[in-house]
Amino acid sequence: MADDKALKDDSQVVAALGAAEKHHDGALGRLFDWLRIPSISTDPAYAESCREAGSWLVRELEELGFEVSLRETPGHPVVLGHYRGEAGGEKRPHVMFYGHYDVQPVDPLELWQEPPFEPRIATIPFDRKVIVARGAADDKGQVMTFIEACRAWKAATGTLPVDVTVLVEGAEEDGSKHLPEFVEANRAELAADLALVCDTTMWNSMTPAITISLRGLVYCEVVVRAADRDLHSGMFGGAARNPIHVLSRIIADLHDENGAVTLAGFYDGVAEPPADVRAQWEKLGLTPKKYLGPIGLSEPAGERDRMLIEQIQSRPTCDANGIIAGYTGEGTKTVIPSQASCKVSFRLVGDQDPEAVAAAFRAHVEARIPADCSVEIIEHKGSRAIALPYDMPALDAAREALADEWGREPVVIGNGGSIPIVGDFKRTLGLDSLLIGFGLDDDRVHSPNEKYDLVSFYKGTCSWVRVLAALAKRGV
Amino acid sequence: MADDKALKDDSQVVAALGAAEKHHDGALGRLFDWLRIPSISTDPAYAESCREAGSWLVRELEELGFEVSLRETPGHPVVLGHYRGEAGGEKRPHVMFYGHYDVQPVDPLELWQEPPFEPRIATIPFDRKVIVARGAADDKGQVMTFIEACRAWKAATGTLPVDVTVLVEGAEEDGSKHLPEFVEANRAELAADLALVCDTTMWNSMTPAITISLRGLVYCEVVVRAADRDLHSGMFGGAARNPIHVLSRIIADLHDENGAVTLAGFYDGVAEPPADVRAQWEKLGLTPKKYLGPIGLSEPAGERDRMLIEQIQSRPTCDANGIIAGYTGEGTKTVIPSQASCKVSFRLVGDQDPEAVAAAFRAHVEARIPADCSVEIIEHKGSRAIALPYDMPALDAAREALADEWGREPVVIGNGGSIPIVGDFKRTLGLDSLLIGFGLDDDRVHSPNEKYDLVSFYKGTCSWVRVLAALAKRGV
Repeated sequence: MADDKALKDDSQVVAALGAAEKHHDGALGRLFDWLRIPSISTDPAYAESCREAGSWLVRELEELGFEVSLRETPGHPVVLGHYRGEAGGEKRPHVMFYGHYDVQPVDPLELWQEPPFEPRIATIPFDRKVIVARGAADDKGQVMTFIEACRAWKAATGTLPVDVTVLVEGAEEDGSKHLPEFVEANRAELAADLALVCDTTMWNSMTPAITISLRGLVYCEVVVRAADRDLHSGMFGGAARNPIHVLSRIIADLHDENGAVTLAGFYDGVAEPPADVRAQWEKLGLTPKKYLGPIGLSEPAGERDRMLIEQIQSRPTCDANGIIAGYTGEGTKTVIPSQASCKVSFRLVGDQDPEAVAAAFRAHVEARIPADCSVEIIEHKGSRAIALPYDMPALDAAREALADEWGREPVVIGNGGSIPIVGDFKRTLGLDSLLIGFGLDDDRVHSPNEKYDLVSFYKGTCSWVRVLAALAKRGV
Repeated sequence: MADDKALKDDSQVVAALGAAEKHHDGALGRLFDWLRIPSISTDPAYAESCREAGSWLVRELEELGFEVSLRETPGHPVVLGHYRGEAGGEKRPHVMFYGHYDVQPVDPLELWQEPPFEPRIATIPFDRKVIVARGAADDKGQVMTFIEACRAWKAATGTLPVDVTVLVEGAEEDGSKHLPEFVEANRAELAADLALVCDTTMWNSMTPAITISLRGLVYCEVVVRAADRDLHSGMFGGAARNPIHVLSRIIADLHDENGAVTLAGFYDGVAEPPADVRAQWEKLGLTPKKYLGPIGLSEPAGERDRMLIEQIQSRPTCDANGIIAGYTGEGTKTVIPSQASCKVSFRLVGDQDPEAVAAAFRAHVEARIPADCSVEIIEHKGSRAIALPYDMPALDAAREALADEWGREPVVIGNGGSIPIVGDFKRTLGLDSLLIGFGLDDDRVHSPNEKYDLVSFYKGTCSWVRVLAALAKRGV
């Protein structure tokens, strides 16, 4: 599948790719070991497992010759390691690889076909072999594509083609709470020329992608409280305020009949994409059938006057992520609950200000709270959207390397997800980031039966072998 | 406190009241034994406990000379016992007492100050002594006021003043699913002159009440399903339908801005109360402060153009009783859930047709389901509202008996709750029901820390001692 033309010039790359191929089975075993550690960062019950997942990676990097240690933060520890070329050699490009060892919670557990922390290989339609486990794609599998690429270079040449710093955190799924202060406190040690991030997706299973923009995030929890106890609906129904009704109104009113978000000033700072980008998007032909069909849907639910690709890439969004109140067990209970709560998040684009969005949301909620009810709004850390420069020198090097590996020109895309730390890398360290990932849209990331294609894992490793070579050769 | 004037005429009543007083401590011990059995009928895990609670009552009734047994149904068993006067005596009035031994679920368990099935006596403000346990008021404590009245009569006179059938079921909190067919199948055995029901409240802690009307019930569960899996909101947000949004719209649209229910035809069959009843209600002076203040609320949430007492007695209502979807654990998860579900119930009055209300609700829901989502609506058994005749002969007898015990004329009221089986007693057995209960509005029925005042328990027992005597003397 690889385009051999590019390889002829560089016997070292050929040797490293050969080493990667030789290591494939071992690489899978190592990834499985890591996936067995239930490093759920948002649940305090799994704090020890998070530490264990970090320690596991420290040992891997030590084996590859990194100076590495587990570094404490007020939350889960950070893995920080360095590999530098021989002292006295000429200055080489220096990349900082970022990823995370923590994973999402696994509920609803009953929907997993096998336990989430017992990784296995499964075969899915079109004879695709996939690794199934929580964290397979997000982000342990992706992190290991880079680590295994380093292993291949080490095995083939005794060294790495560039200087490498590895920064792998344990709280990405919990909003990377303490990482910005860690980056700030370790600015000197984190000095590099470019950040590499492997936490994004391909365009499709055959076409690689480089992500050039990321949506920001505002995440709030709302608790509406009414009576000071649960009530019998036969006794108080019709007179007592029902917090589920109050909360439903709050959520229902977040969107208008055209699918637009109703918060005051919500679209401030949202720019229209340039005409050429828009034209490229139209050409991509992303239909509802292609994008929504595989998940059992057919109608884009976002703003009616926008293309589907706009809805998921260039437009901000709002979603309720969880809601609970009253009696949710089997059978019936005629209760009016004393409180109702829900989690609501916003994906931001362009120059939208997370604090302004959070303030508009607070105002939206508070305007809908009856006089004798109260509301608590918990705001988790927000992040601005990020747009990386199209003229990064590393972008061309990476495009060529990926085209060599996959036999197809990579698509340069925006991404709907948030990786807020990329903003800190720019602000605090002055680093642009190259976001290359091998996930696929059907990976069930954050869902039961999360998977990562074996092709993503193997060719992802080879992709990094080539990207490191291209950066070494062409500079960053 | 009792009005002795009425007693002088009847030494047997005096003797029975004396026996009730002598048994008070024992009665409390017996009630505590029953309260320790966690007979939650809606949760299949407690099926054995339900049977145990029924068996416990069978033994109590055997001790009092009843012919009694536990009778099987497709659900929880029914306790059915008979006490008949000596053969060959003249025909006596025959009452059938109805109650239930099952209780509501206990969640949220963490809000109970003590475990719900470890009954205890607590002192609350104004030096009120109360029995705290799940089922203390609803309905074990109330049932035992009648059973202990029988015990007092038996101890004082060796017999009961009227023939008594006792029918105590185990699935009232689960909609009395199988009781109508049981009543139908046992019509001959259940023949009587009048039904007595003890599952209602007093007007206030000093004023007894006789309930003359009951609201009906429609109870539905709605499950909205969107994508075939949980989705990452960063990847699919803005394009994929969020079932929490769909469900919130369904619930929010159930009421208009004036608090009225919006279902088509919902108010068909709802009559205005007669002018004299309305005048009596106005005189009662039930203010929001009096009714809602004790539960921490201040604004009636129902139809704005109705008095509070109308909202809770003569108007139909709609409440969401529970809702759940997505991630509800600690921390954040940026998921778009694949489904969202909620329980919604309606209290009916007058001639509202439960099937018509359920059909209007289905139409309301289905009209709000996007083309690529699906919905499942589970309908639990519905019941019509019930209005008993003001000219029942037993009503005057009971009024006098209650006035004698409490020193205050009882208030004849409508009740917001539902006891659908009362409709079956009329339809299937031709029996009117006398609904007398000693619960109070602050009993936390269906809530954590449910309680029953000791005064309700003791004077409730004495009330039944007197009511049985009055029915024996004046007929039914």
